[in-house]
Amino acid sequence: MNLKFGLPKGSLQESTLSLMQRAGFQFTVSKRNYFVDCDDPEMEGVLLRAQEMARYVENGVLDAGLTGRDWIEESGCDVKDVCELVYGKSGFRPVRWVVAVPDDSPVKKVEDLQSKRIATEAVNITRAFLKERGIEAEVEFSWGATEVKAPYLVDAIVELTETGSSLRANNLRIVDTIMESTTRLIANRKSYEDKEKRGKIDTIATLLQGAINARNRVGLKFNIQKKQIDTLLPLLSALKNPTISPLVNSKWAALEIIVEEQFVRKVIPKLKEHGATDIIEYPLNKVIF
Amino acid sequence: MNLKFGLPKGSLQESTLSLMQRAGFQFTVSKRNYFVDCDDPEMEGVLLRAQEMARYVENGVLDAGLTGRDWIEESGCDVKDVCELVYGKSGFRPVRWVVAVPDDSPVKKVEDLQSKRIATEAVNITRAFLKERGIEAEVEFSWGATEVKAPYLVDAIVELTETGSSLRANNLRIVDTIMESTTRLIANRKSYEDKEKRGKIDTIATLLQGAINARNRVGLKFNIQKKQIDTLLPLLSALKNPTISPLVNSKWAALEIIVEEQFVRKVIPKLKEHGATDIIEYPLNKVIF
Amino acid sequence: MNLKFGLPKGSLQESTLSLMQRAGFQFTVSKRNYFVDCDDPEMEGVLLRAQEMARYVENGVLDAGLTGRDWIEESGCDVKDVCELVYGKSGFRPVRWVVAVPDDSPVKKVEDLQSKRIATEAVNITRAFLKERGIEAEVEFSWGATEVKAPYLVDAIVELTETGSSLRANNLRIVDTIMESTTRLIANRKSYEDKEKRGKIDTIATLLQGAINARNRVGLKFNIQKKQIDTLLPLLSALKNPTISPLVNSKWAALEIIVEEQFVRKVIPKLKEHGATDIIEYPLNKVIF
Amino acid sequence: MNLKFGLPKGSLQESTLSLMQRAGFQFTVSKRNYFVDCDDPEMEGVLLRAQEMARYVENGVLDAGLTGRDWIEESGCDVKDVCELVYGKSGFRPVRWVVAVPDDSPVKKVEDLQSKRIATEAVNITRAFLKERGIEAEVEFSWGATEVKAPYLVDAIVELTETGSSLRANNLRIVDTIMESTTRLIANRKSYEDKEKRGKIDTIATLLQGAINARNRVGLKFNIQKKQIDTLLPLLSALKNPTISPLVNSKWAALEIIVEEQFVRKVIPKLKEHGATDIIEYPLNKVIF
Amino acid sequence: MNLKFGLPKGSLQESTLSLMQRAGFQFTVSKRNYFVDCDDPEMEGVLLRAQEMARYVENGVLDAGLTGRDWIEESGCDVKDVCELVYGKSGFRPVRWVVAVPDDSPVKKVEDLQSKRIATEAVNITRAFLKERGIEAEVEFSWGATEVKAPYLVDAIVELTETGSSLRANNLRIVDTIMESTTRLIANRKSYEDKEKRGKIDTIATLLQGAINARNRVGLKFNIQKKQIDTLLPLLSALKNPTISPLVNSKWAALEIIVEEQFVRKVIPKLKEHGATDIIEYPLNKVIF
Amino acid sequence: MNLKFGLPKGSLQESTLSLMQRAGFQFTVSKRNYFVDCDDPEMEGVLLRAQEMARYVENGVLDAGLTGRDWIEESGCDVKDVCELVYGKSGFRPVRWVVAVPDDSPVKKVEDLQSKRIATEAVNITRAFLKERGIEAEVEFSWGATEVKAPYLVDAIVELTETGSSLRANNLRIVDTIMESTTRLIANRKSYEDKEKRGKIDTIATLLQGAINARNRVGLKFNIQKKQIDTLLPLLSALKNPTISPLVNSKWAALEIIVEEQFVRKVIPKLKEHGATDIIEYPLNKVIF
Repeated sequence: MNLKFGLPKGSLQESTLSLMQRAGFQFTVSKRNYFVDCDDPEMEGVLLRAQEMARYVENGVLDAGLTGRDWIEESGCDVKDVCELVYGKSGFRPVRWVVAVPDDSPVKKVEDLQSKRIATEAVNITRAFLKERGIEAEVEFSWGATEVKAPYLVDAIVELTETGSSLRANNLRIVDTIMESTTRLIANRKSYEDKEKRGKIDTIATLLQGAINARNRVGLKFNIQKKQIDTLLPLLSALKNPTISPLVNSKWAALEIIVEEQFVRKVIPKLKEHGATDIIEYPLNKVIF
Repeated sequence: MNLKFGLPKGSLQESTLSLMQRAGFQFTVSKRNYFVDCDDPEMEGVLLRAQEMARYVENGVLDAGLTGRDWIEESGCDVKDVCELVYGKSGFRPVRWVVAVPDDSPVKKVEDLQSKRIATEAVNITRAFLKERGIEAEVEFSWGATEVKAPYLVDAIVELTETGSSLRANNLRIVDTIMESTTRLIANRKSYEDKEKRGKIDTIATLLQGAINARNRVGLKFNIQKKQIDTLLPLLSALKNPTISPLVNSKWAALEIIVEEQFVRKVIPKLKEHGATDIIEYPLNKVIF
Repeated sequence: MNLKFGLPKGSLQESTLSLMQRAGFQFTVSKRNYFVDCDDPEMEGVLLRAQEMARYVENGVLDAGLTGRDWIEESGCDVKDVCELVYGKSGFRPVRWVVAVPDDSPVKKVEDLQSKRIATEAVNITRAFLKERGIEAEVEFSWGATEVKAPYLVDAIVELTETGSSLRANNLRIVDTIMESTTRLIANRKSYEDKEKRGKIDTIATLLQGAINARNRVGLKFNIQKKQIDTLLPLLSALKNPTISPLVNSKWAALEIIVEEQFVRKVIPKLKEHGATDIIEYPLNKVIF
Repeated sequence: MNLKFGLPKGSLQESTLSLMQRAGFQFTVSKRNYFVDCDDPEMEGVLLRAQEMARYVENGVLDAGLTGRDWIEESGCDVKDVCELVYGKSGFRPVRWVVAVPDDSPVKKVEDLQSKRIATEAVNITRAFLKERGIEAEVEFSWGATEVKAPYLVDAIVELTETGSSLRANNLRIVDTIMESTTRLIANRKSYEDKEKRGKIDTIATLLQGAINARNRVGLKFNIQKKQIDTLLPLLSALKNPTISPLVNSKWAALEIIVEEQFVRKVIPKLKEHGATDIIEYPLNKVIF
Repeated sequence: MNLKFGLPKGSLQESTLSLMQRAGFQFTVSKRNYFVDCDDPEMEGVLLRAQEMARYVENGVLDAGLTGRDWIEESGCDVKDVCELVYGKSGFRPVRWVVAVPDDSPVKKVEDLQSKRIATEAVNITRAFLKERGIEAEVEFSWGATEVKAPYLVDAIVELTETGSSLRANNLRIVDTIMESTTRLIANRKSYEDKEKRGKIDTIATLLQGAINARNRVGLKFNIQKKQIDTLLPLLSALKNPTISPLVNSKWAALEIIVEEQFVRKVIPKLKEHGATDIIEYPLNKVIF
Repeated sequence: MNLKFGLPKGSLQESTLSLMQRAGFQFTVSKRNYFVDCDDPEMEGVLLRAQEMARYVENGVLDAGLTGRDWIEESGCDVKDVCELVYGKSGFRPVRWVVAVPDDSPVKKVEDLQSKRIATEAVNITRAFLKERGIEAEVEFSWGATEVKAPYLVDAIVELTETGSSLRANNLRIVDTIMESTTRLIANRKSYEDKEKRGKIDTIATLLQGAINARNRVGLKFNIQKKQIDTLLPLLSALKNPTISPLVNSKWAALEIIVEEQFVRKVIPKLKEHGATDIIEYPLNKVIF
């Protein structure tokens, strides 16, 4: 088996390769090639712009790939959406495509865009959104730096935003949200019917989810008197499956739990109150529930 | 007067701002804005992708701007082509759009592209070129990194090249040239009919040409006996208008000539043969013939 | 609760944020603000120069903060010194304020400074030190680069040193030590009387100490025949609380110990002599005894 | 003679050393020393913070030095102010010390600062300014990053600004200007009475002014028919002393003028209207009128 | 004991120090010295070119050191080859010295080198190789950039290669392999007879091997129903010594295994099929079998 | 004609290519090749280590090249030494090969090296020097970082030095100077007999000297009353051939002189004393006397 796997080139490239590495797939990028070697002999990576990913997954050049829900819809391509990949802090957090206008624009709601000029990188999504609402407007393709085009070059823009800070910095006001988008693992429909390839793609999904699960979690291990366990456990009730091992000293047990990193500062004082000793915390690469 | 002047954002930005500075216009770019302050109160700069320049010059948002002949044609816009700006070594040298295929492709001439798939950033130019030759092919927009797409993703590409080295590095072979392109100073037709604005635009053209002329030229100054001048001058005949000034010692004169930097190594041995002394070479900012 | 927590800006900033992160508090610094977001909703960070920390903890603008014992005394402010934070190699090791003079200065002891001129960033500490010994000298505030000021600009300096190497490099000789200083977690006295805030501050202290404890320690885990344990354990007697777990094979046990990193190279040969197998070493984020 | 010359260490260091080099003095900075070698055997450089410069010029450790008018006044020292050094674009442009408050502060004019807390690096200037207006306020020394201290830590700040952009970025509003300041060449009063040292200091002043004059000026040289000179010259009347040289062809002359770089775009069209040919523009190192 | 230990300076320096650190020895390199401090008081590091290592180990200046088998042979020195250090991906993988000629050279086999000129950094190895085959050729020492010397400056080169890509990029063809080489821990023969030093050197070897073993391995820990263990274990049969601990719930056990990183993606699906829960993966610093 | 011209690769590469450019020859270095394109079609550059230059000029692979006198002698090759290229401040200043020993070594003079061990990159020069003085010592080739080898690895070193500062930083004392060396333009003896090639090589020499002459020189131009010239000229007597041009105002003349940059600070006060006006200083590319 040689699974062709598409990786988004450009701004998401580094964080994607890092996630794939934590998932267990090491890619070696060379400068002048779409193809990236993978240490898994059953896979080959292909670096492509996220915008073009669905096109090449649909026509079978790729078996699977990572891209955003937004670009899947913009392309209009028919692909299998295997799973969603979302996680907090940074990385593949959900993004929104919004209609934005200058702070002092008379446009208050999306219906006010009738007969206006709009610049965007996502022409199809935008046109579909407007058509559904019966709005006629001139939507033009923007080659980049869209957010500084209003009001001088166009009346409104449709642009990607995470926190809205870049829009505010350009004195733009959000009028409406066209869509929310998250990263997806997508597959070619025919490849996904092939039993062997489907198994591979599902394993990748499991490992990617495992890496994402581990990102903000740590392991805690500690010794505790057995008589304390009963009162301690309810305090840890939010946690799944603490591992309890007997120790040579039969009054004591070893506990090992997986917790969210931010929760450690709550847990440790409780552990100490219950007389826990030798508490250690260690990093995790993957957590698969 | 407030002339809105478009500057190409991106890969040509730095060399363009540097050329404008040598021409006498200092722009101060801020991070989040299309508008760039100019130390000339009669002008305001606007940073735009070269691909979008003609669009905004045509519709009057800009009075004038710098972009390539290729993007003017790709846009299909109607603008005044004020002058061509070409110079050697690096910078705005002519570039070519070529059809390229993998080294081992069966495609030998452009007619072989019938029914093939072609990726390019210049969809319109490419389609016009093929139509003129009666070739039907699927031309798809490429979001970048076009040169690594053949043969895996498409059969051929249409891509920009200066020296061809990037194509060779990707094992691509040039089949045909679609167009050559150089940088142009373009103007909105209505602005160019306005007498004041036309005067300003023509002055910018003069100063830009002056800066380009100076780029590979230097000044040479030397003392020489008057009786030698007549035999020396024909040897320098390719040069325009040497300035000959008398010296206090009436048998000698001071000559000052402007020569191309590469020509200095030919000129200096001739000067020494004719007894020239105190030869100095100095740098130039502008040369206006 | 919203605990305002002061972090030292400048040279200690990076190592402090890194320590806080290992302790479990992730701060996100933005460029133009004193305030730094924390992933703990109960806390807010404030970046301040170490010199000014005690001032703002004393007047209640901050509830707590990290700074040096030296700057607390220099400021003359009244704050609660919650705990000391010291650890080896690099980072918050103890520093000394010393009186230094040029190698060839006639000044041999601190009493020789009578009527001399002294430059320092710590004017108050220096004056107090001299006054206590009945020495009158002109102490002037130095805006930086103090160590190169003697002997040309002043007779002596009072400067911070860790290893003395920077003083030696400037051909300075240490005459006396004014004070030793370590990093402290300090709190506003009123905040520390508030039960909830005191609990929070004490948890931070515990976690910081936990992170420091883990810095040069690692976990070792290995399998060993039960009959070997009795002879092995005394060799590990310096170590606290080895964790011994029974294994399915009843002649063997699993041992897990926490050791100083530098001690590993001593321990491992001993373990092998006792027939230990499957030895692993893994990193630690925190150790709370 | 061995003139001790103070150079400002820190943010102004690079631009000052570059200016001194264009003036003809090459300093070689070593890492660990106040003293900087100069290629002029009659001079020795000393790197000092601008804040401390006047102190050491006053007490004779230095003969002369470069610092701002602001720090001279803040220090209260008595030194000879030899000349002002101002030039445009970047570098030693005039700076202002302003009183600034948060955008939404109730403070509207400087009198509203009564009983408020103010942070500044220039404590003495600020106190003098307030005292003159009968305002009593608490002025505290800020160790840096002053502009982010209001309103959280203090009510107002007194801070240096060039364009005001850093203040605006911190949402601060300027209430009043305390002083404008430019760079000065200052001398020790006694050194300046010494004839030899005074001659040296005055030459330094001449060369520094020469280098500053050249910064935004260029040389223009062109050939023109003599009969055109009389009508052309008045158009160039703002310029001092054009150099007019005869050419061998007696109907023509060579003119050489020094103009401000920004003025070139006005001059060249006029030259062309008068039939000037072979116009060249060349760079300058120094201009001494 | 003070063991003098040689570390290769230059291209291998960073990866060697990183390996030593993972092995448990932290060296602190200063700029101007061969000697590098070690946090192990029994050792002192000495930075030397790999080419010179064997020379100084042989003559007793060093007790031990790291270098390549190739440079040991090139030097002709007599040292104890304690152990080989090889591992995958990057780092100290085996390298080859090959004879290479231009693609279009008439030289097809090594015998065709008769009377030719050959450039190499490894003059002795090359001469020995040729002599053994009765070939006479002029072998000249190359000071670097050997691979671009053929065919212009010499007929053939003898050069180090890992993947051959640099040779291909220079249009060179490999004719023969002179030797394969790996990194070695070498010792002075006399030092290695000293019981204490030999013990130390062997411990270093053990720790280095331990670090190398851990490089591509991770720990996996999970809970599983005891009844599943029997069917699971054979699937993990390639793995050595899984650690099985009883848990409080007597139907379940805790398993802990050490696997190659690349193997994890095979193991995890199998574990899930067998109902394993709470699977975690964690990094390792050392694995000593 | 196709002149093969050798350029020193490595530490001198950048300054050499910059000097060649100022001389009028623009080379374009590609990464993987000895050959460097030149904008002069009559020349081709070849990048080689300075140590190997003479070897390839002697055997005719190169027609000419740039290297140091030291490496010519070390190689023992027979080449034509066309001219010396020396200039001040930085760049190709003279360098010295010195014998250096640790500060506290018993070696006081070169004769004390009898039977000692010496490390150097210049084995032949060193051996010749010692032999001439009847000293027998073991001279071993050093692969780099020679200056840190004494006293630990060898008794003395022979090393290149410009200012001696690197030796002092390593606590080494200079015992003797073996040779001084400057950069040379060398030519193959047969190429230099070819009339055409000799002409080309001599032109290169002239242009290189012209660029070196201009490096620390500037042009000064000023207007002065004719009656002042006679008293002024003797004060400028060190300068060659001032150019004196008449002005339209017949009482005044324009003078143009070429002076060393460091001399400007002496000349300008004298010019002002003689009533010179409109003094300008401008930069130079070449000066050929």
